[in-house]
Amino acid sequence: MQNRRIKPIKIRNIKFENGFWSDKLELLLTKMIPFQWKVLNDEIEDAPSSHAVENFRIAAGEKKGEFKGRVFQDSDVAKWLEALSYSLEIKSSTELEAIADELIDLIAQAQKPDGYINTYFSIAEPKNKWKNLRDNHELYCAGHLIEAAVAYYEATKKDKFLKIMIRFVDHIDNLFGPEAEKKQGYPGHEEIELALLKLYRITNEKKHINLANYFLNQRGKAPNYFIEEMKERGSENTYLQKNKAKHGLKYSQSHQPILKQEKAVGHAVRAMYLYTAIADMANQNNDQKLKETSIKLWNDVIETKLYITGGIGSSFFDGEAITINYDLPNDRAYTETCAAVGLILWAYKMFLLHQDSQYNDVIEKTLYNGLLSGVSLSGTEYFYVNPLEVWPEAVENRGDLTHVKPVRQKWFETACCPTNLARLLGSIGKYIYSQTEKEVFVNQYTASKAQFNFNNSTFTITQRTNYPWEEKIILEIEGDAQEEFEILLRIPAWCEDANLKINGQAFDLNEIIENGYARINRKWYQDQVELVLKMTIKKIFANPNLRENIGKVALQRGPIIYALEEIDNGKNLSSIFLDGSIELKVEHQSDLLEGVTIITGEAYKINNINWDHKLYRFEKIQFEKVNIKAVPYYSWNNRGKGEMLVWINQILSI
Amino acid sequence: MQNRRIKPIKIRNIKFENGFWSDKLELLLTKMIPFQWKVLNDEIEDAPSSHAVENFRIAAGEKKGEFKGRVFQDSDVAKWLEALSYSLEIKSSTELEAIADELIDLIAQAQKPDGYINTYFSIAEPKNKWKNLRDNHELYCAGHLIEAAVAYYEATKKDKFLKIMIRFVDHIDNLFGPEAEKKQGYPGHEEIELALLKLYRITNEKKHINLANYFLNQRGKAPNYFIEEMKERGSENTYLQKNKAKHGLKYSQSHQPILKQEKAVGHAVRAMYLYTAIADMANQNNDQKLKETSIKLWNDVIETKLYITGGIGSSFFDGEAITINYDLPNDRAYTETCAAVGLILWAYKMFLLHQDSQYNDVIEKTLYNGLLSGVSLSGTEYFYVNPLEVWPEAVENRGDLTHVKPVRQKWFETACCPTNLARLLGSIGKYIYSQTEKEVFVNQYTASKAQFNFNNSTFTITQRTNYPWEEKIILEIEGDAQEEFEILLRIPAWCEDANLKINGQAFDLNEIIENGYARINRKWYQDQVELVLKMTIKKIFANPNLRENIGKVALQRGPIIYALEEIDNGKNLSSIFLDGSIELKVEHQSDLLEGVTIITGEAYKINNINWDHKLYRFEKIQFEKVNIKAVPYYSWNNRGKGEMLVWINQILSI
Repeated sequence: MQNRRIKPIKIRNIKFENGFWSDKLELLLTKMIPFQWKVLNDEIEDAPSSHAVENFRIAAGEKKGEFKGRVFQDSDVAKWLEALSYSLEIKSSTELEAIADELIDLIAQAQKPDGYINTYFSIAEPKNKWKNLRDNHELYCAGHLIEAAVAYYEATKKDKFLKIMIRFVDHIDNLFGPEAEKKQGYPGHEEIELALLKLYRITNEKKHINLANYFLNQRGKAPNYFIEEMKERGSENTYLQKNKAKHGLKYSQSHQPILKQEKAVGHAVRAMYLYTAIADMANQNNDQKLKETSIKLWNDVIETKLYITGGIGSSFFDGEAITINYDLPNDRAYTETCAAVGLILWAYKMFLLHQDSQYNDVIEKTLYNGLLSGVSLSGTEYFYVNPLEVWPEAVENRGDLTHVKPVRQKWFETACCPTNLARLLGSIGKYIYSQTEKEVFVNQYTASKAQFNFNNSTFTITQRTNYPWEEKIILEIEGDAQEEFEILLRIPAWCEDANLKINGQAFDLNEIIENGYARINRKWYQDQVELVLKMTIKKIFANPNLRENIGKVALQRGPIIYALEEIDNGKNLSSIFLDGSIELKVEHQSDLLEGVTIITGEAYKINNINWDHKLYRFEKIQFEKVNIKAVPYYSWNNRGKGEMLVWINQILSI
Repeated sequence: MQNRRIKPIKIRNIKFENGFWSDKLELLLTKMIPFQWKVLNDEIEDAPSSHAVENFRIAAGEKKGEFKGRVFQDSDVAKWLEALSYSLEIKSSTELEAIADELIDLIAQAQKPDGYINTYFSIAEPKNKWKNLRDNHELYCAGHLIEAAVAYYEATKKDKFLKIMIRFVDHIDNLFGPEAEKKQGYPGHEEIELALLKLYRITNEKKHINLANYFLNQRGKAPNYFIEEMKERGSENTYLQKNKAKHGLKYSQSHQPILKQEKAVGHAVRAMYLYTAIADMANQNNDQKLKETSIKLWNDVIETKLYITGGIGSSFFDGEAITINYDLPNDRAYTETCAAVGLILWAYKMFLLHQDSQYNDVIEKTLYNGLLSGVSLSGTEYFYVNPLEVWPEAVENRGDLTHVKPVRQKWFETACCPTNLARLLGSIGKYIYSQTEKEVFVNQYTASKAQFNFNNSTFTITQRTNYPWEEKIILEIEGDAQEEFEILLRIPAWCEDANLKINGQAFDLNEIIENGYARINRKWYQDQVELVLKMTIKKIFANPNLRENIGKVALQRGPIIYALEEIDNGKNLSSIFLDGSIELKVEHQSDLLEGVTIITGEAYKINNINWDHKLYRFEKIQFEKVNIKAVPYYSWNNRGKGEMLVWINQILSI
């Protein structure tokens, strides 16, 4: 009983063509997925060892050896398999499918007779299964494997993997629940909740949603499971105890029952996955209280804790965590790529729940900025942390900036981000449109062709656009019969001037906007909609409570956030000041960074005259005119190491 | 063979009267010294335990018990004894002298038959003496005890303590040196070098200066002693190894022989103590190479690594350390009170070496700002870290700011700062004047009366002034006979307009300024010098390479750096903008913060209009006029917890 029967278009029903995202999907298919498979098999010499596939070989009995990697190493394999599954929907590949089948066979072999799957515990600590839910990620890995199995089933209709995971879920279901003989636990890192909801939509098995519900509602109840469990282990002094003590249960959002949670707290990725499940469950069960909780949490993040790039999490030292209101430093940001993935997942569930454009605005913002910054244009180098300001010398010399890397990395010891980014990219098809029986929501604009069914008719909507670089979007609608339905066009919040024509005739948008969508109700058959989303250069001002950005502006055009780079603007980007009275210009450079629209213009830079080695002086600083060039934030650091800056100083007038 | 027979006036020969520093010395004598003695004896209930005196009682065999505290806990007792010694020169006290004598008896009893003194090793690890010079502070504690013994001898002429320490130094001298059978080591935390130089000036024993010289020149030679020593211990994985690995030997300035050191590096207090000894030895031996080294290190600090408060050290996570050029963040500053003490010690030796006013400028800056901020107006609460910007909510919630405290503390587990501040304050008399056979340098201005001898005549110089609040300084010179000598008046770098009158007659300062001093050569007898150092409100601009302060100014009047506090200016001090076209005013408030001159005026503050819960918007920010009030930085946080800000945003004009 979802609130409204709204659903995405299936990934296979949308084709991306000659545009921004088709290029990125090409990168995913030809570079990211093959490269990541090599890393997972330890075939990239100069990348940190993964051992993730090897762990499965050892657990399956195919090889002898020791487990290596993190306790959650299995999840890298799962996320890669999920990405691969989406890629098969985008473009079939017998070669890749064969690799997947072989890997699934290996997972089957690694499964214990009771259904259990986890290579760390199977190989290294078989006696310690389920004894430390707080830290040990067994349920988290299970969740990612479930998501992969669902994706692979949807892509191939082969159900072997799905059955493997259903057996594992049965095992988990036998272990956890309200019954006295079961453990009353829940995962230290949320993930399985949202995965079980996905599984339920395939199996329609009540026990699958019930288990998700149990995990959600058990969370944070007194006495706290993680504390009880710790006492039982006789261990009062584990890693988390020592290092995260200050934040304790908030780190895993287990400080309160979820219905009492109103502020986003703790480890950012954990938080995003929990909030995704909350929104999804609220929708699935049409649960008013969960709905209210999800709105409170959303507003808290949007109003006080979100970077303009869609980045979430502002502190490494508090556990890759969300901190207090308006605490959004640019150089010390955590803004993990995985948190950007999680924010998109959550925003999407919020959209399904509320059908308001603001959620897809956040998805757009995150896709084009804080998510995409996580990968190089080559597809083979990644950021884990996506700061909004980098001074490489400080990053390389300050112990409080060790989490920030000045250049993207081939891989990581904790390598959650690259495969997470790959699976999100692979699933991008589902974020473009949503459909109900009478409505098509156009959520994202990108060159593509998608199929819809209304009653017994099939419709194709072709988007012709060079978005996000150009402002005109043409939608060609072709039905095999005439049908009445509504097309809803998202008018992004960044756009203050949008124009609409239908079959050449102008429409007043103001009359038809509802919840951020221009709602066009008519009989469709063979029609053309032209939407122009005027893209001027916008200067973003931050709420003055966000102290870090006072006196600064960020540049945005369309959904793209811009950054200054040292390679274009010289050293010391902080000494550049924009002047509100000087108009900046837009230019598309097809040979730069694989084709980007840049922003150029005059600005002022503090000069070095009369400093004479002095560190301080009474004499006023002096400015000189300079030409600046800003590139899309996501594309930074593809031309070598150097400074980068998003929030630029601005000469302010009273 | 010092470069020039320049020496301070003895502490007992200067009396502070009705002025800024006489008030601070009153605080030292009546509050700080008694309070600290109570803490060292664990008699302050709500302060962290010290156990420092108790450790001596146990080591002396007076009591049974375990050692408690840090491995360098003895140094707190030593520094307190040194402070006490100075206080006896300022104002004799049979009661305090009796306490000191008793404590010295205890130290004598705690001394081992071979001369060794260190309560940690005597009580807890007698077998591990001298096995880990890098971390274990035995030579550091010895250094502080030597300084205390010298100070007590100078104050009382009693030599018991001095003899105790000479015995200990003999023991150390037998253990360390170039001879094959000796250890070729040196201290992990410098301190004994400068102490041995002090001792040498009392004993005139060559071996005392030779040992200092040995420690200095052995430092950083290959193979590195700390690495060899670590191998010998069979310990490759100690605290420093694990935590300070990135910075390794730089942490203790043992990465290079001292003559190759050109950049200030590592733990800031260690660095300051080393550089003090280098400058002192350069002067003592008239050593040109050491002199060059000291100038390179000084320039490096002054040009790239010094906060305007005289604070040194900008990173906690790199070992309370100095980092790279221009890396001087305000909120994450380390700026340990002990480093400010160390900078004053160093600057003073640099002045003796070069007789340039810049060194006393730095002493003045540090005394009035980054040193004095370390203690509350009550004398019983202390800062270890002296940041230039505090947002208490961030400090209390961000793991990268745990070293910053939003309010002063009664005591610390590592309690180096309070006693260090006390001994520096106690010795302030020596920073006011220096003398050669033919010159009196007036280095600092403060209401006081000092005695000098020239040939067979005695002169008194009385400073009548309300400095640093008022700009006029009258020096009354009274000799018992007429003598020709030079009086050199420091013209502070902050002062761009100074006027001089001698016996009512104006003098052109420009003609007589040399190395920052106005040099007045005449026959003195009964004369009056009037110096007016015009104190306008100055706005300090930072070198643009200091990114953190771009777009900001700091306020200075006379030697005092100002700060905004929340209690006077409301929340969110970063949203306040000064406007260069609005004149600020000066007002002395005798009832505020025990009497301070404040700066007031109009400024602009970003208002909260039209934000409507938004975190970002395209609409420009709006300002409203506000009245601001700035107080001396050193006096902040004496009226409860709240925000504080030194570098204030400023509306810039091109």
